[in-house]
Amino acid sequence: MATRSNTVAIVGAGTIGLSFAALHLTKDPSCKVAIFDNRSDLQAYVSEHLPRYLVDADRDTCFARLTLAESLEEAVRDADIVQEQGPENASFKIQIWPEIEQYAPQKALFWSSTSGIPASEQVRDMQDKSRLLVCHPYNPPHIMPLLEVVRSPDTSDDVVERTLSYWRNLGRAPVVIRKECVGFVANRLAFALFREACSLVAQGVVGVEDLDEIVRTSMGPRWTVAGPFKSYHAGGGEGGLTSFMAKIGDTVQGCWNASDEDMKRGNIVVGGPWQDDVCKQTQEAYGMVNTSERDLKTRNILSAVKDSCRA
Amino acid sequence: MATRSNTVAIVGAGTIGLSFAALHLTKDPSCKVAIFDNRSDLQAYVSEHLPRYLVDADRDTCFARLTLAESLEEAVRDADIVQEQGPENASFKIQIWPEIEQYAPQKALFWSSTSGIPASEQVRDMQDKSRLLVCHPYNPPHIMPLLEVVRSPDTSDDVVERTLSYWRNLGRAPVVIRKECVGFVANRLAFALFREACSLVAQGVVGVEDLDEIVRTSMGPRWTVAGPFKSYHAGGGEGGLTSFMAKIGDTVQGCWNASDEDMKRGNIVVGGPWQDDVCKQTQEAYGMVNTSERDLKTRNILSAVKDSCRA
Repeated sequence: MATRSNTVAIVGAGTIGLSFAALHLTKDPSCKVAIFDNRSDLQAYVSEHLPRYLVDADRDTCFARLTLAESLEEAVRDADIVQEQGPENASFKIQIWPEIEQYAPQKALFWSSTSGIPASEQVRDMQDKSRLLVCHPYNPPHIMPLLEVVRSPDTSDDVVERTLSYWRNLGRAPVVIRKECVGFVANRLAFALFREACSLVAQGVVGVEDLDEIVRTSMGPRWTVAGPFKSYHAGGGEGGLTSFMAKIGDTVQGCWNASDEDMKRGNIVVGGPWQDDVCKQTQEAYGMVNTSERDLKTRNILSAVKDSCRA
Repeated sequence: MATRSNTVAIVGAGTIGLSFAALHLTKDPSCKVAIFDNRSDLQAYVSEHLPRYLVDADRDTCFARLTLAESLEEAVRDADIVQEQGPENASFKIQIWPEIEQYAPQKALFWSSTSGIPASEQVRDMQDKSRLLVCHPYNPPHIMPLLEVVRSPDTSDDVVERTLSYWRNLGRAPVVIRKECVGFVANRLAFALFREACSLVAQGVVGVEDLDEIVRTSMGPRWTVAGPFKSYHAGGGEGGLTSFMAKIGDTVQGCWNASDEDMKRGNIVVGGPWQDDVCKQTQEAYGMVNTSERDLKTRNILSAVKDSCRA
């Protein structure tokens, strides 16, 4: 599909930055990556940590396509894509984009990996506000397919289309968020369920491990196959979601009401009285989580999804 | 493990009843099942619909272990387990259990598949209130591993233990809910996320299909591997969930606050002004869902989970 190799500049090389670098290098075998980060031990740090993200790939050929830039200018001057994951504060981002704009080629796409600072805020001092959008990953991006593509009112359709096209060519799942909103969509959904989970554990209805087991053996696999709307639409039979709401609506509302009451009673806010015990239970249940094992299992499940779709 | 074959009486043969019948028949090759339902075409109905639930099993040997009982007494008199999925109203259930108690062997376990009427209410007129608990499945039970085992204050530990042991021998995932609560746990969690989903779609942040795609490519696979507590605990690194809440807590609370405001503004209650458009979008996106395809994909994913755990 690509007629020439892409060059991606990774600005900010924390865990998300390295995971993205690995994603580009492994999914697009001709892609070149330049990393810029002002930490003094960048070379040692990248050599030590990048390899573990280079799953099923030849490390030498990946490293051969990688440059560690000594300046922001060097990193972005040949870039087709500039992907930023610097500190999560608006002033940093507002300041860096005009600088990037000054050095990068005119057609380069500008992506921020922020989980909460909308493009409309980041573009404040840019010349061309149409070039920037948010590509918010679900961690870690070298494993998880989702990218929330959050455009600002200024982002051009062309920039959105080229962004979607790049990610689709890499076999990822970019989804356009139509309006900027607090937390975007994935975190909003996940945190809504997490709040209910905290509330139920805080009340002693169920333990932390058992709640996790419930999710792993029901919603997890179900929602890997069909999202909530499709699932409940199927649950309504021929009449779809409309029938589902007509038949089960009272039960749904009963749950929502009980949830609201429990949240208030339990004071389920961040830092509320419930929090210490829930954190303690979680620590006792899991200790230090082996994320390599988690990532391996996740990859197996994602392969099974792909194979099922082909079948 | 079982020293003799189990006999399960299925009282109420709707889709849940048939799915459970198939589960017992296929997962325990020596198990006998008796079905009782007062529909007049029971024989034709079971012959037509049961086979599609008998996945990877020899249909003839399954049907050879199946009896259609002509009365409740006949269905339960040799039962080790009586599993009820009659109409979802308390008066029906309050009435039927004393009758079952009168005919069933003294050691038989009594399970209700209700999604909302707690055992403590159903036992009202029983002699021995310690025998009954809720085994609430996640649909369809012949596919989905989860069973919410919801005890009442009267349920004996022995009944809980024998229930867990039965399901574990069948390779299922029974989880004990410690306190009866509205909607139990799985639906409470799923409906909390669903409410947020409805709210975000109603506001035009994202479309129905795109929201489903977001869940399918992020939370779905993640939560198939590790539930929300374990996931966020891992996200906090060495300090676990405590660190996660310290670092990301403001973002979490920001999402919860935005969610509360949006729910109020959008009047996200069942039957609210948002509902018609969301149902219409869902219908346009999916038409009639092919649940056989969904179930096949789900089985493939569950196999991948099992294989990963063994590896």
